[in-house]
Amino acid sequence: MKDGAEIAEVMAGIGARARAAAAELAFAAPEAKRAALGAAADTVMARQAEILEANAQDMATAEARGLSAAMTDRLRLDAGRVAGIAAALRAVAAQPDPVGQVMAEWDQPSGLNIRRVRTPLGVVGVIYESRPNVTADAGALCLKAGNAVILRGGSESFQSSTALHGCLLEGLAAAGLPQDAVQMVPTRDRAAVAEMLRMVEHIDVIVPRGGKGLVGLVQAEARVPVFAHLEGICHVYVDAAADPEKARRVVLNAKTRRTGICGAAECLLIHEDVAEGLGAALVADLVAAGVEVRGCPRLQHLPGVVAASDDDWGREYLDSIIAAKVVADVDATIAHIRRYGSSHTECILTEDDAAAERFFQRLDSAILMHNASTQFADGGEFGLGAEIGIATGKMHARGPVGAEQLTSFKYLVTGDGVIRP
Amino acid sequence: MKDGAEIAEVMAGIGARARAAAAELAFAAPEAKRAALGAAADTVMARQAEILEANAQDMATAEARGLSAAMTDRLRLDAGRVAGIAAALRAVAAQPDPVGQVMAEWDQPSGLNIRRVRTPLGVVGVIYESRPNVTADAGALCLKAGNAVILRGGSESFQSSTALHGCLLEGLAAAGLPQDAVQMVPTRDRAAVAEMLRMVEHIDVIVPRGGKGLVGLVQAEARVPVFAHLEGICHVYVDAAADPEKARRVVLNAKTRRTGICGAAECLLIHEDVAEGLGAALVADLVAAGVEVRGCPRLQHLPGVVAASDDDWGREYLDSIIAAKVVADVDATIAHIRRYGSSHTECILTEDDAAAERFFQRLDSAILMHNASTQFADGGEFGLGAEIGIATGKMHARGPVGAEQLTSFKYLVTGDGVIRP
Repeated sequence: MKDGAEIAEVMAGIGARARAAAAELAFAAPEAKRAALGAAADTVMARQAEILEANAQDMATAEARGLSAAMTDRLRLDAGRVAGIAAALRAVAAQPDPVGQVMAEWDQPSGLNIRRVRTPLGVVGVIYESRPNVTADAGALCLKAGNAVILRGGSESFQSSTALHGCLLEGLAAAGLPQDAVQMVPTRDRAAVAEMLRMVEHIDVIVPRGGKGLVGLVQAEARVPVFAHLEGICHVYVDAAADPEKARRVVLNAKTRRTGICGAAECLLIHEDVAEGLGAALVADLVAAGVEVRGCPRLQHLPGVVAASDDDWGREYLDSIIAAKVVADVDATIAHIRRYGSSHTECILTEDDAAAERFFQRLDSAILMHNASTQFADGGEFGLGAEIGIATGKMHARGPVGAEQLTSFKYLVTGDGVIRP
Repeated sequence: MKDGAEIAEVMAGIGARARAAAAELAFAAPEAKRAALGAAADTVMARQAEILEANAQDMATAEARGLSAAMTDRLRLDAGRVAGIAAALRAVAAQPDPVGQVMAEWDQPSGLNIRRVRTPLGVVGVIYESRPNVTADAGALCLKAGNAVILRGGSESFQSSTALHGCLLEGLAAAGLPQDAVQMVPTRDRAAVAEMLRMVEHIDVIVPRGGKGLVGLVQAEARVPVFAHLEGICHVYVDAAADPEKARRVVLNAKTRRTGICGAAECLLIHEDVAEGLGAALVADLVAAGVEVRGCPRLQHLPGVVAASDDDWGREYLDSIIAAKVVADVDATIAHIRRYGSSHTECILTEDDAAAERFFQRLDSAILMHNASTQFADGGEFGLGAEIGIATGKMHARGPVGAEQLTSFKYLVTGDGVIRP
């Protein structure tokens, strides 16, 4: 299936079937969707051997191609990870069903009763890389929100994803829901991705999950709306009025708990009044934890600090490295973040509520934290259940994107033969 | 100012100034925005003579160019319309301020308190045609929601819009808000529109207000997200269980109250069981009211009915014409609307709640009505105050777009030094 015209035809067929399935799914009973996800989880557990066998094939191909250790780690499944996939399916099944929820209801003097109710978005396209579990997570969240989904995973994980997709299909069949609700692109050809990005008739939103290369490509090329974050350049600001003990605990956690996730801190901003005392202690903590601290000139005298270059501001390391800078005050911090931030997550450490309020009011990142670790930027930690990603755009979905964020709404208006004067 | 490169430069400057103003407006005090709108309304009344003089110049140019009567009517201002513009500014001023509203708040077991609060979208671009009042309405709604706005009105209304824009600037100055919050494109050159549609760095959303030609162009060309409806092809379905008296009242109102608005009914679908009785009476009412009824073969024997062609299904007349068709039942109606509708507004007339529920559940138009006229599809009638248009997309804003719909949100998270395990 190498021919461009042929791929366009295949994708158009997938799109049309997704659109038709979405029209049915939009009013599927909550119990049916729950049953489908439960049956899919059962199938994942029952087919564990098959799934691991498929994954072994992907791993062998990946190793033959010389993929990086980080990439093969993301690709690898074992019994624990397979059980985790089944558990995630059951967790989504157990969430409240967003579709049909009345978001607001009011009466007008004209005699109209107006309800704003949640509806599915329609068809979601998910483009991802090597993690096979995204197949199950994304499929489950889209289904929960009544959307049909078109999954396009990385070519590295094709066999694993196909095996997991089979489990989702089994779940749909068990619940009497249309099989076309969860489709997987049946080719590794990259032309299929380009096609998805242009399918405005058949896809309502694209969710890219992966590195900066993938997300940047999708954002640049897509004609379909996109829910995405390109980078998580998270800042932590230590105010003059920070509680030293809280600050030391939070800064260390924000940087080191996991360095490879989008909510990891990448830049530490320290109020000049506390740079020598608390600031030096924070830097020492980070250095002791094995973090490379790239400091501004005012921090370079501290043990273990290397000199930051201009490129270090606004940089996403996703590694055991942090940029650190002394700033004049909260306003200088706000200016720095506006210039270098990526509208993902920023934190202020302070006991001064006015400073925290100013930080909350004058920054417009999707998530702003006060005295809490940026590593909490996560749908599960927000109580939204599973998430399909963190959106940093301003339109529609922002922050963790769970089932509820994959919905739209409509107005239902009831009268008693009322006419407009 | 004819040179493309020069226009690109001018627009980039406008965009950069709008972005800077938006950063300030985002935390402007509600009273300041209210004061600006009140002062703008006062200025409109004080400058009535100037505004009418500017409008007279536009009218003279329009007449010299031979613009249609409908177009010159939209362009024309008189003392009453100027007073209406001032009243609309005061009405927006009196609305509750959406920015900072807490949409949801909850606590997590980890110790986090999470608030989801409304924030402005940023910079809104409004592209419209000959109605000068859009200058004031759009400017006011964007300002209310804390957004900077770039206004690009039709070249026909350039002088009138400039005069009204001056009143808005006066209001901003009186309230100490940045003048760049409401900017008007200073050229009639159409290249400025093309530029706006591509300014993804500087404009967060484009709102086109005008006919199908303008909206279609914007939707096809824009790289910036768009809130728009292309057409309002509103359907009214008369069920077998319709109350005849309500049905006659609503159908007549839905078609004839005003034929040129997007909420006007364009297609009447009649259940076959009542086609001969109630259906014939509805058709007679419409014919008596001077409406041209284009009927399917099963209605063509009725007095005054002309034969509908295939082109009449899914057509927006915006005139005293209606398409009419006999259908088998509510499911046939749903199928017809899915095929020919424009996702704007549809109405079911019935006393059968199960039929109404099916219609509400299985259709996904922005607005669905039960026993109420489609002419209620309006922000004022929904209690949203003024509106900038009716959106039929599924993303972000749907239905009437008022100040609240011109907002986004962010999460504010507060802890007490809490870290993620």
